[in-house]
Amino acid sequence: MRYSVSLAALLGVALGTAVSAAAQAGRSKAPLVLKEQGSFFVGGRTIHTDAVSGTPGGLLGTGNGGSITVDQMYVQYQIPEDDGHHLPVVLLHGCCLSGKTYETTPDGRMGWSEYFVRKGRAVYTPDQVSRARSGFDATTINMVRLGTLPASALPNIFTFSHEDAWTVNAADEFGKQVIPDLNALLPVANPTYNNLSALAIKLKGAILMGHSESGFFPEEAALIDPTGIRGLVSIEGSCDRSFAQQPPPTPQEIARLARIPILVIFGDHIADSPFWPLFLSGCQQFVQQVNAAGGDATMLHLPTAGLFGNSHMLMQDKNNVRVADLILAWIDRHVEARKD
Amino acid sequence: MRYSVSLAALLGVALGTAVSAAAQAGRSKAPLVLKEQGSFFVGGRTIHTDAVSGTPGGLLGTGNGGSITVDQMYVQYQIPEDDGHHLPVVLLHGCCLSGKTYETTPDGRMGWSEYFVRKGRAVYTPDQVSRARSGFDATTINMVRLGTLPASALPNIFTFSHEDAWTVNAADEFGKQVIPDLNALLPVANPTYNNLSALAIKLKGAILMGHSESGFFPEEAALIDPTGIRGLVSIEGSCDRSFAQQPPPTPQEIARLARIPILVIFGDHIADSPFWPLFLSGCQQFVQQVNAAGGDATMLHLPTAGLFGNSHMLMQDKNNVRVADLILAWIDRHVEARKD
Repeated sequence: MRYSVSLAALLGVALGTAVSAAAQAGRSKAPLVLKEQGSFFVGGRTIHTDAVSGTPGGLLGTGNGGSITVDQMYVQYQIPEDDGHHLPVVLLHGCCLSGKTYETTPDGRMGWSEYFVRKGRAVYTPDQVSRARSGFDATTINMVRLGTLPASALPNIFTFSHEDAWTVNAADEFGKQVIPDLNALLPVANPTYNNLSALAIKLKGAILMGHSESGFFPEEAALIDPTGIRGLVSIEGSCDRSFAQQPPPTPQEIARLARIPILVIFGDHIADSPFWPLFLSGCQQFVQQVNAAGGDATMLHLPTAGLFGNSHMLMQDKNNVRVADLILAWIDRHVEARKD
Repeated sequence: MRYSVSLAALLGVALGTAVSAAAQAGRSKAPLVLKEQGSFFVGGRTIHTDAVSGTPGGLLGTGNGGSITVDQMYVQYQIPEDDGHHLPVVLLHGCCLSGKTYETTPDGRMGWSEYFVRKGRAVYTPDQVSRARSGFDATTINMVRLGTLPASALPNIFTFSHEDAWTVNAADEFGKQVIPDLNALLPVANPTYNNLSALAIKLKGAILMGHSESGFFPEEAALIDPTGIRGLVSIEGSCDRSFAQQPPPTPQEIARLARIPILVIFGDHIADSPFWPLFLSGCQQFVQQVNAAGGDATMLHLPTAGLFGNSHMLMQDKNNVRVADLILAWIDRHVEARKD
């Protein structure tokens, strides 16, 4: 039940109320000038399924087998007309959410995806594998319907209820972003890890950001292949892998991660939950380990930087632009200053 | 089995190969200048679920009930800096797909969503209710896992296999766009209909476009409330509602639809399938009925307009810009010329 408890903790902490007047200025009236935009898929493999549908005999009555693509990751992107030679930034969402996380906030202000573009960064916003526009493999569910597999084979789909997912900004609107999490359908090494690594290689250098469920995904991607990864940003994630129910990073893994600048961010109200202090302390230990191994890891606990009242959805809070500016400043100093 | 047969027919027809050199010019190098962009949700209602997760006792072991939002429709939009006082266009995707349908094509060219923006139209791209970033209600699946409902209660999820979904352009890449269709979880009056109508009202006037599964959704939205709807574009859909397994439009419904300009589009290779001629003839009859009722309905069968080789994914074919230009010309002549 550790996973379940951690998940609920992850979602129950959001209580912030602080508002920065400066942050309100996030919605710019200036035109947005793009050099290019679009979307594509990273990864994906073709498999045979015996259950294209939940209809016996298949849709045509001539068989229910066929080839389908699984494990692909949808990525939407925008490149500003003037990127100032900055590195691209990849913004990955967390549990029960999609790339919408980084778009217009529930109360209608500018999200981080546009804000980073306006700050001269090419921005890539994926949907995790098995979520939203990345699609999912329905074979298991169809086979249970067909009687080929027992009900116990169904994935443990989890979502968050309004009661779990308290947030400061426009809670009713936030509730519409919630998408049931089908990651239980995926292999233990979530294909999103490999897809993130491949995306960074495709971009010839990128900064990877993860949040909550995906907070440690940038590190997982770097451990698969760090070639394209220039910086890692982990927001309120599980640095000891307890959320993923996996063993914590080994000294060898710490040593490999120490070659990449790392920023770990936590918001306010951590102590309000019995569980969140464990995530924070796990990440504090991780930061110490990386630095002890010669790395450049920074713990940014927002209240110590003078930002109070944040919820778990930092990128949607009323001070979201101020938090973004802190990340941009870290990128400038810790990543781009040492760019090749 | 009629639905199943129709679906397979809908997906099996794509065989086109024709390429227009002029259409290749779709990818512009000019910067894209936006007045505004973002995303929001239309519709949605709060319900109580007894199965927030598939875990007995709930995630915390303290109960598995809670409030969740269902039936909401995600909409992404871009407004060009200069919209030339044109009406917004809503681009809705079809079966087993998402808003990705109208973005970058599988072979990397510009999609209709950006092309229409570059032609001075505000573009709104939804994901259908229960698809992609609109999320879905997992309650039924969780209850089957929990043993509260039998396996037969599972939705008949359908997707299309590579064998079904032949397309002319980059078939492997197209396969990555496919998302299992969970519409069997929805009420008979698909909430997307009402959400489309509400979106048009919110926009204070819009042209609605649907494709394939959603080909007749614009008409369904207009029959709920035509207030905001200025034009209807139906691409390779089922005008007699056979695809939705519902009775065809009544004379009263035809009379109400006759108040709105309607464009129906079919591509090439219709006769290659035993089923597609039925869709085409059903729509031809619909167009005649609307015009007999005093309406302004146009049937655009691309081969008769000199465009050959199109697949079912007209908006992704190599001549996609030429097809878009025909739609824009129809909007100018049949909708905007009579704008209030």
